[in-house]
Amino acid sequence: MSEPSTKRVTIAAVARRAGVSPSAVSHVFNGRPNVSEATAARIRAAADELNWRPNLASRKVSGGGGRSLGLVIARSRGTFGRDPFFMRLLAGLTEPLAELGWSLSLTLVRPDEDEEQLYRQWWGEQRVDAFLLVDVRDDDPRLALVEQLGAPAALLGAPVPGPVASVTVGDGTAFAEAVEHLAGLGHRSVTRVTDAPGLAHTRARDERFREAALTRGVRAEVAAWDKAADDPVADLLGRLGESTAIIVDSETVAAEIVAHAPEVGVRVPDQLSVIAWEDSWVSTIVRPRLTAFDAPVEESARAAVALLERLVRGEDAAPQTVSGRRLLVRESTAPAPNNREESP
Amino acid sequence: MSEPSTKRVTIAAVARRAGVSPSAVSHVFNGRPNVSEATAARIRAAADELNWRPNLASRKVSGGGGRSLGLVIARSRGTFGRDPFFMRLLAGLTEPLAELGWSLSLTLVRPDEDEEQLYRQWWGEQRVDAFLLVDVRDDDPRLALVEQLGAPAALLGAPVPGPVASVTVGDGTAFAEAVEHLAGLGHRSVTRVTDAPGLAHTRARDERFREAALTRGVRAEVAAWDKAADDPVADLLGRLGESTAIIVDSETVAAEIVAHAPEVGVRVPDQLSVIAWEDSWVSTIVRPRLTAFDAPVEESARAAVALLERLVRGEDAAPQTVSGRRLLVRESTAPAPNNREESP
Repeated sequence: MSEPSTKRVTIAAVARRAGVSPSAVSHVFNGRPNVSEATAARIRAAADELNWRPNLASRKVSGGGGRSLGLVIARSRGTFGRDPFFMRLLAGLTEPLAELGWSLSLTLVRPDEDEEQLYRQWWGEQRVDAFLLVDVRDDDPRLALVEQLGAPAALLGAPVPGPVASVTVGDGTAFAEAVEHLAGLGHRSVTRVTDAPGLAHTRARDERFREAALTRGVRAEVAAWDKAADDPVADLLGRLGESTAIIVDSETVAAEIVAHAPEVGVRVPDQLSVIAWEDSWVSTIVRPRLTAFDAPVEESARAAVALLERLVRGEDAAPQTVSGRRLLVRESTAPAPNNREESP
Repeated sequence: MSEPSTKRVTIAAVARRAGVSPSAVSHVFNGRPNVSEATAARIRAAADELNWRPNLASRKVSGGGGRSLGLVIARSRGTFGRDPFFMRLLAGLTEPLAELGWSLSLTLVRPDEDEEQLYRQWWGEQRVDAFLLVDVRDDDPRLALVEQLGAPAALLGAPVPGPVASVTVGDGTAFAEAVEHLAGLGHRSVTRVTDAPGLAHTRARDERFREAALTRGVRAEVAAWDKAADDPVADLLGRLGESTAIIVDSETVAAEIVAHAPEVGVRVPDQLSVIAWEDSWVSTIVRPRLTAFDAPVEESARAAVALLERLVRGEDAAPQTVSGRRLLVRESTAPAPNNREESP
């Protein structure tokens, strides 16, 4: 019934067709209840016939809210689904976004997909007003891309040189704390277990770990978790050399290690101490319960939203560091085995 | 610099200001690379000066994608963050949405917040083109609301009488399977443990559970998980009466039970068999590993997206049932204790 047209249909045309005032049309499409149901139905029918819908773009310009934060997560369904960090991040973002009247536009892309095209499209279609970048890699092309698009953006994680502002969880002293805890228990060689090599924060953590260990006379090794191995836990334990303690990036990997280690002949914490870099509810449903770092994920999500809101308003925004990573000592760390043998 | 105006700024005005053709403006805002960087910068500057942005609404009318699915989850951060179901759902939605060029607009509201206002606002501002309803309650006001708004909507979970189409995981035979498995192990009294009373799917499951048990001469009880108790596991175990097996709605609750039960004097599975209604990676990081139902969450997410896409195109869409819930027998179910004592 509606003829194709290149002319823009106006709210006035819809109002005329429905025999009402333009403000009545506006009320219906704003969900305000002060229009009778019969009139509202007539207005919706007129809008449908003319293919008219309220114009989000002009609302945004008028400052009427309706903004959206874009979050593109480049992870496989499996690694996304197993990482409570993302649940905490999503939960942590939605609250401050709701306070601003913003929504969150979320998508998951496979790591091999053309992620950049998605950023261009979302920005070009004005689906989002700002981007939050996570899992930032060294030389990440998204940093130049958001700059080129002129899109407000912030990255969550380790700062990367360049103009994109970052929100970082301050963990400058965390490795020192972990290494001190382990050294105090007699551990002389510690392996850091990483599960996402290539990310900027992974490299930054490697450096801080080695530095913290060096200062305290502890030998530092780094090993990558190989989830493709037949038995990833056995595989990792076979590569630990003299290390009697591990610091594991992900608490789900740490949980898998403490649960499965006894089945391949390694008792935790008697023979191996385990620290998880990130705490979550997963830490306490395994036995022994994981010694883990409580990280302020929700606080950093809130800081990122505040930073982006300033950028969207055209203000400057400085990089931010959210502090508060602290070691929760539970049951998965204990005196080093050689140390124990020496005791009476 | 830009004067406030009630007149709508057109793409032609931006093109004039930048000294280019309207199609060049369109190219830049569509992220197409066939405009030189200098020209693109001039166009973006002109658009900024005039406060112009491409009009999402008219793109939608022309069928150029840009649609968005709205998902409002009314859960506290804690219960959202602990439930791998939502991670599977989000991961499962994004793939079929991406294939359609749709985005996902997600927010989390506290259960006591005015959720309906959010639906009105998102719909009124045309932030979303359809809604997916989860955690649907008996007499859920959202069912009438989406009808009133004229918004395409589908609900995921148990069907509720009314016009909103549902996508249901077919579990008609699941309780029969669970009860049969347990009866075969000699269990004569089974308790179903629910963690979200008041949801439509909870009530539907209660009924099917009682029916399945009745048919097989097994006594059926229902107990609510009380996460506010000092020790929720001890609290639940104290209320089991004669039941020697439990079927637990959530696998994270089931995981907490099997991990903590020995610490309050109950050995799993020797003294108590445990089945989780929903399987996830959590089932296999606890010991004993959980016997659990594998549910086709990703498949039902895909079915919901397909259903909504038809509704948005103005086609009819019938309710759908996705089958495939099947029992994965692992280590948390074993012969009933009295049965065991009778064996030689």
